[in-house]
Amino acid sequence: MPRFALLIDYDGTPFNGWQRQSQGQPSVQQAVEDALAKLEPRPHTIAAAGRTDAGVHATGQVAHADLARYWDPFRLSEALNHHLKPAPVAILKAARVTEDFHARFSATERRYTFRLIARRAPLTHDRGRAWHILNPLDADAMRAAAAHLIGQHDFTTFRSTLCQSKSPVKTLDEITIDTRPVPGGTEYRFHLRARSFLHNQVRSIVGTLERVGAGSWQPADVKAALDARDRAACGPVCPPQGLYLTRVIYPEDPFAT
Amino acid sequence: MPRFALLIDYDGTPFNGWQRQSQGQPSVQQAVEDALAKLEPRPHTIAAAGRTDAGVHATGQVAHADLARYWDPFRLSEALNHHLKPAPVAILKAARVTEDFHARFSATERRYTFRLIARRAPLTHDRGRAWHILNPLDADAMRAAAAHLIGQHDFTTFRSTLCQSKSPVKTLDEITIDTRPVPGGTEYRFHLRARSFLHNQVRSIVGTLERVGAGSWQPADVKAALDARDRAACGPVCPPQGLYLTRVIYPEDPFAT
Repeated sequence: MPRFALLIDYDGTPFNGWQRQSQGQPSVQQAVEDALAKLEPRPHTIAAAGRTDAGVHATGQVAHADLARYWDPFRLSEALNHHLKPAPVAILKAARVTEDFHARFSATERRYTFRLIARRAPLTHDRGRAWHILNPLDADAMRAAAAHLIGQHDFTTFRSTLCQSKSPVKTLDEITIDTRPVPGGTEYRFHLRARSFLHNQVRSIVGTLERVGAGSWQPADVKAALDARDRAACGPVCPPQGLYLTRVIYPEDPFAT
Repeated sequence: MPRFALLIDYDGTPFNGWQRQSQGQPSVQQAVEDALAKLEPRPHTIAAAGRTDAGVHATGQVAHADLARYWDPFRLSEALNHHLKPAPVAILKAARVTEDFHARFSATERRYTFRLIARRAPLTHDRGRAWHILNPLDADAMRAAAAHLIGQHDFTTFRSTLCQSKSPVKTLDEITIDTRPVPGGTEYRFHLRARSFLHNQVRSIVGTLERVGAGSWQPADVKAALDARDRAACGPVCPPQGLYLTRVIYPEDPFAT
């Protein structure tokens, strides 16, 4: 069966996360599998690079599907988008890949962006699309704290107790924080890059860095929390709606052409 | 009665425009007036700089209200935001102004931004927040066409037949178009600036420029359409959901401090 990679963009608000749910709650995986079943009527099971949590968004999720027909990739993406309506899920691109391509296991890097907006007034346009806090943060203090997390570490502190990963050791390649003015306040964007992440790692890190930005923690406290290798040493895990899976890297980009 | 200026940000999606409706459909004006009535129980009537249409958004609308109490401006904005929930309307700032300040008549400049996203896939995150078209546009051709509209002209062609303005002559000070990559395509942002606009002028201009960007019209056709001074010569009026009132300028900025 020919295998296809799908580049997927979604607003996670109405979904109970990426992963198909046994109780039938809406999931992005289910939405895409249902659209595939409109094209080739039978049960489909697709695998994705990142199993995003409830409320988490993606602009560059990647999944793969095995189909019976040798679809023209452009026609496949158009047909899937037709059947995905009105769900806020879109196939940005489809590409034929070889059988040894696996959306999850072949990935060599994942990139996430977390949006945090600090302003007194409630959010309007960005409600459900960013984490809202009231007061501005010290970006330089957050950057100093983030520097302690770069590289290979035991991230037990920044990992959900539900995390199923065999090892808590991960290599974090990047945490950059940029700021921009928005109406009534400031937006902070956290960009994180690693081969792979532990469950809740990004939200645990951003939630902890926010404490530093607010002045409750010192940058050195983040190093101490990391060194503690203790989930209880983590800052508060931040809410899901600011998180976006933006890009997945493979040895060869399946969507290059 | 002390007069207050309000800087207002809203997602226009659930509203039938700014203006209060006789039939009781939801409007932004009504939402703000209802919040004011929670603070000072009596009918309120507020005036705004731009009476945005149904589905149109604002990040910098300005209105003024006459109140009985000498509110602390910060407390006033906080109290209004409390009562506005859960409507996607937020008071970014309140300021005490003199009696001769009028949100509409004192304004010397209005700025609008129109967001247009060209990509094959349906919109997800920006649904209701931008105009979606399928194919990329020629931005330079649109810029060449826009140049014909700058300055003082009779804008009868680009004016709704419902427009109540006494004269069709307006001075357009700026139309700039910037582009940025977005997942799966390109976003075009049109920035327009004038002392005041005719009804549907921005949407008539952007809808016509889109025809130029798509290659259906030549830039010179826009000059011919302007010179025709005939509503029938206008291109299609584009949908409201890409339009944002971003800023209103006054001789003295009421929100400066």
